[in-house]
Amino acid sequence: MGASTGPDAPAGRPEDAPPDVGTDGWSGPLADPAYRVAVVDLLGVIAYGELSAFERLAEDATMAPTLDDKLAMAGMAAAEFGHVAALRDRIEALGGDVTQAMAPFQRAIDGFHDHTAPTDWYEGLVKAYVGDGLAADFYREIAATLDAETRELVVAAMADVGHADFVVDRVRAAIAADPRVGGRLALWGRRLMGEALTQAQRVAAERDALTALLAGGVDRPGMDLAAIGRMFNRLTERHAARMAALGLDA
Amino acid sequence: MGASTGPDAPAGRPEDAPPDVGTDGWSGPLADPAYRVAVVDLLGVIAYGELSAFERLAEDATMAPTLDDKLAMAGMAAAEFGHVAALRDRIEALGGDVTQAMAPFQRAIDGFHDHTAPTDWYEGLVKAYVGDGLAADFYREIAATLDAETRELVVAAMADVGHADFVVDRVRAAIAADPRVGGRLALWGRRLMGEALTQAQRVAAERDALTALLAGGVDRPGMDLAAIGRMFNRLTERHAARMAALGLDA
Repeated sequence: MGASTGPDAPAGRPEDAPPDVGTDGWSGPLADPAYRVAVVDLLGVIAYGELSAFERLAEDATMAPTLDDKLAMAGMAAAEFGHVAALRDRIEALGGDVTQAMAPFQRAIDGFHDHTAPTDWYEGLVKAYVGDGLAADFYREIAATLDAETRELVVAAMADVGHADFVVDRVRAAIAADPRVGGRLALWGRRLMGEALTQAQRVAAERDALTALLAGGVDRPGMDLAAIGRMFNRLTERHAARMAALGLDA
Repeated sequence: MGASTGPDAPAGRPEDAPPDVGTDGWSGPLADPAYRVAVVDLLGVIAYGELSAFERLAEDATMAPTLDDKLAMAGMAAAEFGHVAALRDRIEALGGDVTQAMAPFQRAIDGFHDHTAPTDWYEGLVKAYVGDGLAADFYREIAATLDAETRELVVAAMADVGHADFVVDRVRAAIAADPRVGGRLALWGRRLMGEALTQAQRVAAERDALTALLAGGVDRPGMDLAAIGRMFNRLTERHAARMAALGLDA
C-alpha cells in the first residue's frame, strides 16, 4: 500500500481513458490507494463468508439422510472453498493479506452463523440456498459499482455452486410429504433474513472503507440514500422469489 | 454425472488397445467381470474414506486456533473431496454406482471416526496426518497388485494434500511449548492405529471381493500369507516413521 499518497488522493480516470497509471502501477479507480484498501476490505468479507459457508455446508453434509445427498452437499462445500483461492490471489495482488483482510469480519459472520445454526437437514438446506443467495445478491449489487476486474472476480465468487436446483427439489419434496414442514421452514427463512440484516448493519457501522465503496468516487457512480433504498427493495424481492421457489411464504 | 457409463464405453481404454479384449470391451485383468466388481469395491471404500476425511477435516477447521490454520485445514479438506470426482468417474465407467459402491463401507469407516473423534485441534492434526497416511500406505500396497489404470488412479487419490509439512510443523511447535502434549498425542497415535486395524479387519471379514484382490488372479501376482505379513510390517514401520516425524513415540 503506497505511503506517498494519502486517503484523500484524487482518484484515477475511468478505464477507457488514456493511460493514467498510478504510482504503484495501477490504473483507473485502482490507482487510488483508498479505493484499493476498500476493495481488499470487500474481498476480505467475501472470502471469510465463503470460508464460513464451506464449514457450514460441510457440517450440514454430516446430517445428510442419504449418501447421494451427502455427496451433493460436500461438493457444494468444496466449490465454495474453491472461490477462496481466487479472492486470496487478488487480495495479495492488491498488497493485502488474506487473513488480515478476513479478520475484521469474523465476528459478524460468526455471529450470523451462531444465531442461525440449523437443527436439522432441511434448515441447513434452506440456509444454504436463502443465505448464500442473499449474500450473492448483496455483493453483486456492490460489485456493479466497482472496476471491471473486481466486479468479475466478485461475480465469479458468487456463482451458484449448485444449491438452487438441489435445495428446491429436496425442500419441495419434504413439504409435499409433510405440509407442516413448510410452516416451520417459512419462519426459519424470515429468521435468516433478519439475522443477515442485523449483521450487515453491524459491518456497515464498523467498516468505513467498505461503506465508502457504496458512496462511489470521482469517477465511479455511487449510491445515494434513495438508490440504497431501491437496492434493499431488490434484495427483498429476490429473497421472496427464492422463498416462493421453495414453496415457502416470505 | 461424470464419464459415459455402460459396458460399451470403457473410459480410458486407448483406441489402439491390444487384441486381448474381453467381451465387454475391457482388456487385461479388467476383462474379468469379477475383477471389475472387486475394483469397484476398492474404489468405493477409498471414495467413502475420502468423503469422510473431507467431513472430518472440515470439522477440524472449525477448531483452528488462527485464520491461517483454518484456511490451511479447509484447503486440505477441499482437496480430499477433489479426489472423489475421479473415483466416481472410474466407478461409473466400470458399470458401478458411486453411492452403492460406498455404502458397504460406511459402517466401518463411520465406526473408525466415531471411536477417534478428536477432542482438540492437535488430536485432529495428528489424526489427519497419521490416519490418512496409514490409509494411503494401505491402499497403495493393494494398488501395486492391480492393473495400471486402477493403480494410477489410487495413487493419485492418495496423494498427500499438504498434511505432512503443515501437521509436523504445528505439532512439533506445540510439543516444544509444552512437552506434556507429546505424551498425550503419542497415546492418541497408538489408539488411531488400533482402531484402524480393528475396522480394516471388519472390512476384510465382510468383503470377499476386496480380499480376493489381495490374493491375485490368473494373470496378476497376488499376496500369500507371508507377503501379507511383510506388508503389515511395512505399514507399521511407516506409521512409526510418521510418529517420529511428529516427535512422538510410536
